[in-house]
Amino acid sequence: MSTKPTIPQGTRDFPPEVMLRREFIFNTIKTVFRKYGYAPLETPSMENLSVLTGKYGEEGDRLIFKILNSGDFLSKATEFEDSRKLSFEISKRALRYDLTVPFARFVVMNQNDITFPFKRYQIQPVWRADRPQKGRYREFYQCDADVVGSDSLIYEAEYICILDEALSNLGLDDFTIILNNRKILSGYAEVIGQSDKFVDVCVAIDKLDKIGEKGVRKELADRDIPSESADQLFKMITFTGTTEEKINFLKEAFAGSETGLQGVAEMEEVFQMYQNLSSFKGKVDFNLQLARGLDYYTGTVYEVKVNNVKIGSICGGGRYADLTGVFGRPGLSGVGISFGADRIYDAMEELGLFEDLTTAPVDVLLINFGSETLNPALKTLNKLRAAGISAEIYPENAKMKKQFSYADKKGVPYTLLIGTAEIESGLFQLKNMKSGEQVSLSVEDIISKLR
Amino acid sequence: MSTKPTIPQGTRDFPPEVMLRREFIFNTIKTVFRKYGYAPLETPSMENLSVLTGKYGEEGDRLIFKILNSGDFLSKATEFEDSRKLSFEISKRALRYDLTVPFARFVVMNQNDITFPFKRYQIQPVWRADRPQKGRYREFYQCDADVVGSDSLIYEAEYICILDEALSNLGLDDFTIILNNRKILSGYAEVIGQSDKFVDVCVAIDKLDKIGEKGVRKELADRDIPSESADQLFKMITFTGTTEEKINFLKEAFAGSETGLQGVAEMEEVFQMYQNLSSFKGKVDFNLQLARGLDYYTGTVYEVKVNNVKIGSICGGGRYADLTGVFGRPGLSGVGISFGADRIYDAMEELGLFEDLTTAPVDVLLINFGSETLNPALKTLNKLRAAGISAEIYPENAKMKKQFSYADKKGVPYTLLIGTAEIESGLFQLKNMKSGEQVSLSVEDIISKLR
Repeated sequence: MSTKPTIPQGTRDFPPEVMLRREFIFNTIKTVFRKYGYAPLETPSMENLSVLTGKYGEEGDRLIFKILNSGDFLSKATEFEDSRKLSFEISKRALRYDLTVPFARFVVMNQNDITFPFKRYQIQPVWRADRPQKGRYREFYQCDADVVGSDSLIYEAEYICILDEALSNLGLDDFTIILNNRKILSGYAEVIGQSDKFVDVCVAIDKLDKIGEKGVRKELADRDIPSESADQLFKMITFTGTTEEKINFLKEAFAGSETGLQGVAEMEEVFQMYQNLSSFKGKVDFNLQLARGLDYYTGTVYEVKVNNVKIGSICGGGRYADLTGVFGRPGLSGVGISFGADRIYDAMEELGLFEDLTTAPVDVLLINFGSETLNPALKTLNKLRAAGISAEIYPENAKMKKQFSYADKKGVPYTLLIGTAEIESGLFQLKNMKSGEQVSLSVEDIISKLR
Repeated sequence: MSTKPTIPQGTRDFPPEVMLRREFIFNTIKTVFRKYGYAPLETPSMENLSVLTGKYGEEGDRLIFKILNSGDFLSKATEFEDSRKLSFEISKRALRYDLTVPFARFVVMNQNDITFPFKRYQIQPVWRADRPQKGRYREFYQCDADVVGSDSLIYEAEYICILDEALSNLGLDDFTIILNNRKILSGYAEVIGQSDKFVDVCVAIDKLDKIGEKGVRKELADRDIPSESADQLFKMITFTGTTEEKINFLKEAFAGSETGLQGVAEMEEVFQMYQNLSSFKGKVDFNLQLARGLDYYTGTVYEVKVNNVKIGSICGGGRYADLTGVFGRPGLSGVGISFGADRIYDAMEELGLFEDLTTAPVDVLLINFGSETLNPALKTLNKLRAAGISAEIYPENAKMKKQFSYADKKGVPYTLLIGTAEIESGLFQLKNMKSGEQVSLSVEDIISKLR
């Protein structure tokens, strides 16, 4: 084979300079997760197909990457007329589609060994056979924290802090953490007399950003929701004011809805606890219009938007009343959040936040002057590394120009010149590759300068 | 679905306590890679099938996990009599089998942007449809460092240091870094007059550990290598002495073999540079019997054995003259090493090296005494976290016994009691969960104690 190789559509190589930035993002988030008592978990890339099928809707099922069985898979195949049916006969494993279902599967399999509430974070790739387009990949990392086995709203309040602290530590400074509660959405439906059309109401509200009030009113009318109900709905979801004013307004509006009132009470408690818990003071917005689509959420829902970049939501999450019921273990409530690493990367790049991040893979390059000076150079190299400095020597006695160009292209900030004169004096030439400045220093001084 | 879910054979979940140990291993190795100027790279989990096929031999090809094409894959299928043939019609992507072929593919695709010599490390899972057994998994991490684009033996010498430093930093203290050179093996074959049977000679020597001298002699005889040649061979490979004595011995023995002499000269240069480069002094063994099977190695070869655990080789590697030729870019020489993370984990566990490793996911648990003391508790929690301490509060006002049991099971080293009396005095009770000792401290003192 000598045609130029390619990689599959929708997948990416991450070269060193991108990796160092991605690692900065993941490490920053991970550090915050740990500070809040979340512990790491990893699950296998492949799950049994039966674990994944039926968990992501019909569309989701179609986007699952299936792994072909090994060996003589045809011996068990009969459905040669229908790709979908045949696929279940010739593949019994598939690639992870998200981190939530494998987490639920793990919790059920290990329920007797787990200490509840169980708090885990998980940073791993997932795969979706989606049509690739700008910002949408077939392999991408998810970065989730979830807690399962408690109804306490403390976790809801802490997730605001986690979002705030992680994003602030990444250097983002103009973002809004948007909150609402699915029980408040139930309240709307109840109050406008459309409890049986709760899902339709949710779906319509979820589109408000995209299609505007007129569009939403049309959607509602199409679903036989009378215009008086729509009026009532818009009166509620367009109310503006402080968090306290919103809470008071909804308490009145939901006088007739127990679920709605419970949602308001939950929000009130979450905000109260958050006040005592938070060091960071990012903008938190109680958004009466946040719906989070048709997801399995049943309580608090989260979204985060970067205000100075057009990029959509960079984080999301919420409370789900029953995480593990689908695997035969009902009654375990969970709440979690997810950081969209790719969008965060793009936002940070657009805002120039990577510019101050040192992505040099190595601190100093020793120039190679050939066999005569090699041993002292290697000894110096060893001293630098023993002091914890990332250092390398150019592998050959090449022309100076070539060696400096190597340092330049790699972004190495310093080069070190150890020629015969330098060995005699014990003072080596340290060159700052950016400024061009060159100073004569002892190994000890070089170490303290670079460390 | 309510049957208990399972995970695919040969795959594993890594729960928090295992993850924290694995992270310690990977971070330790990564830190050393970086100190030697290696930068991170990640490639996609899936490669085009054509990139992988034919690179790992016939057996390897069979062990590649193929991904079923999405949608109506049957429309292009014709080979319904032969699973192997059909598999190429219905899958065009496959899971990564190792990290070396994707690395070569990356280098060729990006050859115009890469600064050579290109030094990368890569820590990612690979997949093999092997029969699972103790210590052999279908998904496992590889942990590789390679440099491509230079023939310099400096890299060979540095890899000894990297192996030595990484394994020492992991706490292993009785291991041997074993070295040889494939050109020395060529020398043997030449000297005994069996150059045309070089591969047979290699394969036989490679089995010496397993089948002993008698077995190897039989293998050689079976391949029509006369017993005088076998005698000559054993005289060479059983020579004992210091590294210097071995080098001198081989120089004489290889008087008639240019390749053999070149191998000896390479070893001599590697050892000489290593002397100047190394801070750690693990045992390095110039092993005249090391062959490294039938691999693509052409120069120095490495293996590492832990002497006080029966576990086989935990690291391996070597020089390959042509890494990228198969993708249409000949002439790029490379050298690399690979750490076997699973075996290292098992060895460390057997040696009790994880015992001192703190794997507690959180430093301190605040006991929850209910709503009356909640706000001060949350404020304290915030102060602890702001000081960088990993802390959490039990989410409900449960019985003390239950809360302490949670801390115990999670391995949390301290609990903090903030009741009404404590709030009044400003002194909180910090309990050491191991010793049971309880002391009364201010928040500031707690922070300095835990930090």
